[in-house]
Amino acid sequence: MLEKLKKEVCYANQSLPRYHLVTFTWGNVSAYDVKSGLMVIKPSGVEYDTMEPEQMVVMEVSTGRKVEGLLKPSSDAPTHMELYKTFPGIGGITHTHSRWATIFAQAGRGIPAYGTTQGDYFYGEIPCTRKMTPAEIRGEYEKETGTVIIEAFKELDPLSVPSVLVHSHGPFSWGKDAQESVHNAVVMEECAMMAWHAFMLSGGHLDPMQQELLDKHYRRKHGKDAYYGQK
Amino acid sequence: MLEKLKKEVCYANQSLPRYHLVTFTWGNVSAYDVKSGLMVIKPSGVEYDTMEPEQMVVMEVSTGRKVEGLLKPSSDAPTHMELYKTFPGIGGITHTHSRWATIFAQAGRGIPAYGTTQGDYFYGEIPCTRKMTPAEIRGEYEKETGTVIIEAFKELDPLSVPSVLVHSHGPFSWGKDAQESVHNAVVMEECAMMAWHAFMLSGGHLDPMQQELLDKHYRRKHGKDAYYGQK
Amino acid sequence: MLEKLKKEVCYANQSLPRYHLVTFTWGNVSAYDVKSGLMVIKPSGVEYDTMEPEQMVVMEVSTGRKVEGLLKPSSDAPTHMELYKTFPGIGGITHTHSRWATIFAQAGRGIPAYGTTQGDYFYGEIPCTRKMTPAEIRGEYEKETGTVIIEAFKELDPLSVPSVLVHSHGPFSWGKDAQESVHNAVVMEECAMMAWHAFMLSGGHLDPMQQELLDKHYRRKHGKDAYYGQK
Amino acid sequence: MLEKLKKEVCYANQSLPRYHLVTFTWGNVSAYDVKSGLMVIKPSGVEYDTMEPEQMVVMEVSTGRKVEGLLKPSSDAPTHMELYKTFPGIGGITHTHSRWATIFAQAGRGIPAYGTTQGDYFYGEIPCTRKMTPAEIRGEYEKETGTVIIEAFKELDPLSVPSVLVHSHGPFSWGKDAQESVHNAVVMEECAMMAWHAFMLSGGHLDPMQQELLDKHYRRKHGKDAYYGQK
Repeated sequence: MLEKLKKEVCYANQSLPRYHLVTFTWGNVSAYDVKSGLMVIKPSGVEYDTMEPEQMVVMEVSTGRKVEGLLKPSSDAPTHMELYKTFPGIGGITHTHSRWATIFAQAGRGIPAYGTTQGDYFYGEIPCTRKMTPAEIRGEYEKETGTVIIEAFKELDPLSVPSVLVHSHGPFSWGKDAQESVHNAVVMEECAMMAWHAFMLSGGHLDPMQQELLDKHYRRKHGKDAYYGQK
Repeated sequence: MLEKLKKEVCYANQSLPRYHLVTFTWGNVSAYDVKSGLMVIKPSGVEYDTMEPEQMVVMEVSTGRKVEGLLKPSSDAPTHMELYKTFPGIGGITHTHSRWATIFAQAGRGIPAYGTTQGDYFYGEIPCTRKMTPAEIRGEYEKETGTVIIEAFKELDPLSVPSVLVHSHGPFSWGKDAQESVHNAVVMEECAMMAWHAFMLSGGHLDPMQQELLDKHYRRKHGKDAYYGQK
Repeated sequence: MLEKLKKEVCYANQSLPRYHLVTFTWGNVSAYDVKSGLMVIKPSGVEYDTMEPEQMVVMEVSTGRKVEGLLKPSSDAPTHMELYKTFPGIGGITHTHSRWATIFAQAGRGIPAYGTTQGDYFYGEIPCTRKMTPAEIRGEYEKETGTVIIEAFKELDPLSVPSVLVHSHGPFSWGKDAQESVHNAVVMEECAMMAWHAFMLSGGHLDPMQQELLDKHYRRKHGKDAYYGQK
Repeated sequence: MLEKLKKEVCYANQSLPRYHLVTFTWGNVSAYDVKSGLMVIKPSGVEYDTMEPEQMVVMEVSTGRKVEGLLKPSSDAPTHMELYKTFPGIGGITHTHSRWATIFAQAGRGIPAYGTTQGDYFYGEIPCTRKMTPAEIRGEYEKETGTVIIEAFKELDPLSVPSVLVHSHGPFSWGKDAQESVHNAVVMEECAMMAWHAFMLSGGHLDPMQQELLDKHYRRKHGKDAYYGQK
């Protein structure tokens, strides 16, 4: 069942330590098969080195039921499923505790767009969610984590800003498939590192980049007028 | 004598440079065999690369006597023994001068819990000891280092917060065995790095994470209601 | 056509990840053959690992026409061509989003000469361009990027200060050939990292190094009285 | 002539990139044979990878004359010689532009002793020289660099504080032989990195460590009462 997707998800998970996005088992990638409504996700607490595609867990997004797999899914699975249900067009999600993005999450701040590196991938600031309420935390916590992410995108297109920071926690990224979600997680980490230092260098006050420059760079790579790469 | 434990201790010591926790020989790991009351510890000033299990030193915790080994034990051995005598349930201790934890120790500050990365392992702030008195420093210095650590845990459970910073010195971590103590040292280092930057990004004022979120994350991984991993 | 130069350009591009100057495909190196008026440049969006010399794109600098190559040239090609047309004596250009230089670009600040490391290669501050106007951004953007760089060197010798930061974007470096432009990009990155920290350590105010020391170090390595190295 | 010393010096130079102390050829190590009054030093501008012992340059310290070697000596040779002439008991010197030590040099500040990591090797702050005068810079610059270093140790024992920062330039370290001077350069770099962050974490004011603790740690490793390691 979904053998190809399991391989992709396994490989995408294994790329996390190569990109220096995770320590120990602190990260998980999933992919979504829109036709069948099934999600493939990393099992909980398993090492990346020895992970095999057949260990990936298959879940039905509409019900949250596990439909295949010997192991327990990542404890963050309900968050992934909320996002697949709500954000149309996303086919992969990556969650990590990568250092620089997590620093912004811990400070409860979004990552402002200070330069074209961010503008090439994110159409503006990467937002940080509000704090969760005690009731949300004590309730279906991982599902409610999805709720606050979705709330942060009420007036924002998740395809134009394919990442978010969960307050006091860490980042989630997404994309058209598992690999693109990891790619966006790497870009966010790079942008967070540079934003931190540009902000501090400026004494704690730095305006975002010009809107015109953001428009230009985002559209060089996305949409009908894109001209970056070999397409 | 304690051949299995010597291997574990040797291996745990050798993992320190792999985790980028040590420069030269600046770190030592020990393990405690509660039944025999014996501790196995790294010899002093020996390189990790060429270390062999049979070079590990065996000491009697109640008396501080060396009972086996050709080499001198780590000069920090008396600190380790104080902790084994006082903290019930710990079976391994790691001491390093890892960069980020040592930075907080040099500033004389604990590492506040700013996010779930810390909350998954530490139930709150990792404390920093008070400065030692001139008498403590001139006396049985390494043993007194244990004393000030124990003092910092007077109202704190060492199993729930398995690490400490010794003022103007560096970190100690512990766990159920040698390997877990190294694991906790890695987590602390990661948390210290992120706490430093989150704190500075916030202009030098940042409240710890919500208590509810800390409760949630710590209990996801610890205690009777844990549901993280494959247990 | 220009086989030797294609090899040099391919090799110089492949050295970017080795020097930790790029993430993914975020950087490009070109070389200029002054006799024929032709530029060889990396194709757009191609991975460094698998790049081959024959994939390099050849362009006529005076007209901006592609004269050889199956792939599209780097989207930054018009910027490179503006610089070859205007700065006499440069034979190679490197553009990256390297972390430390980009941080200064995002903050809209030049990299001051705080020490001899910079003085050995750059005769003073590495300047940052002004922001581009909305008209420049909406017009021939990549060409206008060259225009603002050239403007920043109106009273500055590009051979004595062989690098620049483009505001809210990232660095460009140059040199007598492709390899030297990469070399200067590495030096700039090192200088930017140290300048950031020296500036912050000084509380946000730090005078540049003494003019006499800058003169001494720059001239130890450049010009008729140079005595560094084996020349 | 001095074949053993040449091998040691060559090997010590080659260890600089392994310890991440140098970029390109920015560092040099020498050793001094007190009996013959001869110094062996790295040639100028040569790559570490391909360096051979027979390329090392032999110089007479009393006269500054090259007595053996096909290549030119490091341009910093006169600085090394001033130190060998003046600091009794040192047999090796390392000069680099290592990042963290150079940051303090660029800010014109010494590296305060904030913790036992520094206290284990340096009996207090690692000093920074005064700025050189225009006359010193225009005169025998490299020799005068030695002069300002020596001046910084007027009331300081170079064997107890085996490193210095040259203002707006970078660090020099020394020791009983070439290898020990590299070792001290590594320690200084580690201490500088941690001191920078401890200082900033404390809001720009941080007292050095207690004198008693400094005494204790320095004497654990040095002098007649040392008890660290297997001696």
